[in-house]
Amino acid sequence: MTKFMDVHRGMEGITSDQLREAHQADLAIEADEGVHFEHAWADPDSGIVYCLSEAPSADAVQRVHERSGHRADEIHAVPLSV
Amino acid sequence: MTKFMDVHRGMEGITSDQLREAHQADLAIEADEGVHFEHAWADPDSGIVYCLSEAPSADAVQRVHERSGHRADEIHAVPLSV
Repeated sequence: MTKFMDVHRGMEGITSDQLREAHQADLAIEADEGVHFEHAWADPDSGIVYCLSEAPSADAVQRVHERSGHRADEIHAVPLSV
Repeated sequence: MTKFMDVHRGMEGITSDQLREAHQADLAIEADEGVHFEHAWADPDSGIVYCLSEAPSADAVQRVHERSGHRADEIHAVPLSV
C-alpha cells in the first residue's frame, strides 16, 4: 500500500456539504478496490480539491473516483511523508 | 487561521532525509510568521511536494518557505476539509 495525493480541478464554488458527500461516496465503495481515502481539502475559489488516500495503485484510486462520479485530473504516489 | 496546501515542483529524486530536513527548516522559523506546517508529502518520480499548513495568509506561508530556501510554486487556501 502506498499513499496517493490526487487533484481535482474545476470545482469552483464547492461547499462543505458537497465535499463531505463526495468523500462519503468514495468511502462507501473504496473497499472494493482496497483503497482508503483519508482526507480531502478544497479551495472553492480556485476550484481545486486534494484527496489523500492509501491504495494499491493510482488506477485503483481512479476507479473509485470514477464510480463516484468525480474523476481525478492528477494522481501522484507520495511514498515520502513527514 | 486557515489551512493552506502548497505545491513545489522540480523536486525529482528527493529523498526521505531531504524531505525531513526541508520540513525541519520550515518548523524552525515558522513561528516568526504565525504559521504551522503540519505535513508534507513527496513524489520523487514526478518531483512534486505537497505541504499542508495552518497560517494567517498565503504570503506568510511563502515567506517561511522562501527563508528556508524552497519557494512554493502554488499556494491554495483550503478552507474546506474532511
